[in-house]
Amino acid sequence: MGEVKLFWTWSSPYAQRIAWALKLKGVEYETMYEDLGNKSCLLLAYNPIHKKVPVLLHNGTPICESLVILEYIDETWNTTTRLLPEDPLARATTRFWAKFNDDQVLPSAFQAYVSKGVEQEKAKNHTLEKIDVVEKQLTGKKFFSGETLGFLDLVFGWIAVYLEIIEETSGIKLLDKERFPLITAWKENFSRVPVIEENWPDKEMLICKYRQMREYFISKAAASKGTVS
Amino acid sequence: MGEVKLFWTWSSPYAQRIAWALKLKGVEYETMYEDLGNKSCLLLAYNPIHKKVPVLLHNGTPICESLVILEYIDETWNTTTRLLPEDPLARATTRFWAKFNDDQVLPSAFQAYVSKGVEQEKAKNHTLEKIDVVEKQLTGKKFFSGETLGFLDLVFGWIAVYLEIIEETSGIKLLDKERFPLITAWKENFSRVPVIEENWPDKEMLICKYRQMREYFISKAAASKGTVS
Repeated sequence: MGEVKLFWTWSSPYAQRIAWALKLKGVEYETMYEDLGNKSCLLLAYNPIHKKVPVLLHNGTPICESLVILEYIDETWNTTTRLLPEDPLARATTRFWAKFNDDQVLPSAFQAYVSKGVEQEKAKNHTLEKIDVVEKQLTGKKFFSGETLGFLDLVFGWIAVYLEIIEETSGIKLLDKERFPLITAWKENFSRVPVIEENWPDKEMLICKYRQMREYFISKAAASKGTVS
Repeated sequence: MGEVKLFWTWSSPYAQRIAWALKLKGVEYETMYEDLGNKSCLLLAYNPIHKKVPVLLHNGTPICESLVILEYIDETWNTTTRLLPEDPLARATTRFWAKFNDDQVLPSAFQAYVSKGVEQEKAKNHTLEKIDVVEKQLTGKKFFSGETLGFLDLVFGWIAVYLEIIEETSGIKLLDKERFPLITAWKENFSRVPVIEENWPDKEMLICKYRQMREYFISKAAASKGTVS
């Protein structure tokens, strides 16, 4: 199926879902490590609109936007595990929740991560309300996609990996076991899938990176408000 | 294929693309007119997360989010005209630009429509930069999807219908023929496709509605800033 390269970075939950998808499909690929503080010319050339990871390069052609890439991977390497279900209604439901995550849940958690004080408390409560909605999607299910791992598990995978990094680096509690028993159980199931577990980003590196990033975002926000943090 | 209902309103470019898609596919459906100032209990029950049109009700099951609905329609009524191309790479490109439109171009034009003065000038220039990017996608093509009408034409269809309504009701010029010759030519081609032309929203009703909506949004923004507009 030709040459595959993934422009990737440790800190991006959007990039991580693509790494998992390629591994699940058994696709051989080369990882192009990106430093988001100093993006490569290649990344800027391949994703001129958004200038972001992930970018999947397949036989020299770039594909951007992580949900678009996930569908591309599923349609291109379609002889093994399918990520999306076959039924149009189940596919629509999957796409709806994937969009909900990317438009609402993840940005809200990011806001809680990069803020402080009253603003952080507000963002935290907003995130918890969104996670309440996510929790309900797991009723009676082992994975978001049903009995086996699928598209939505990769999309919500950041909850398993990055939420505790956000908690540890920004001092807030988000994933409470009592409030979110189904997500807590899912996190266990998800992290025990061999391909997922074998390709789990290094926790120490993530914590170090997320501490740095938080300082950067908070001082940038303070500077734009003309205040000293 | 069962009972189909579309929760729709005149003013929504997101709802209009679904009406066109159903007509193109030859799907018989009932239109459920929604007044967004006074949403029906049914709309709130079928789309509790976003509380927005469009909602497609197929045999009693609601499908929400217009891009998700478009893919559902294409997969469910798949024996006639296909909206998405078959090739995975072309599908990825289509999904990328659809997302770009919905995340960036349409919200930017909406911002120009509901603002005034310096803020409007800024939003207008931002929108023009986004439309520059859209213009380039038509190089050497009759439609966004190629030689025949497809998914992206329905997504960008609001440019043909609603941009002149925005211009007329908010007093700004966006679709300049000199700056956007390809979009201007596409608008002609698009509006001449029989199914599109026969299901074009009434211009007078749209102008009346958009004038009302603009007053509402501007006075709401002024109230939240504590100023009198």
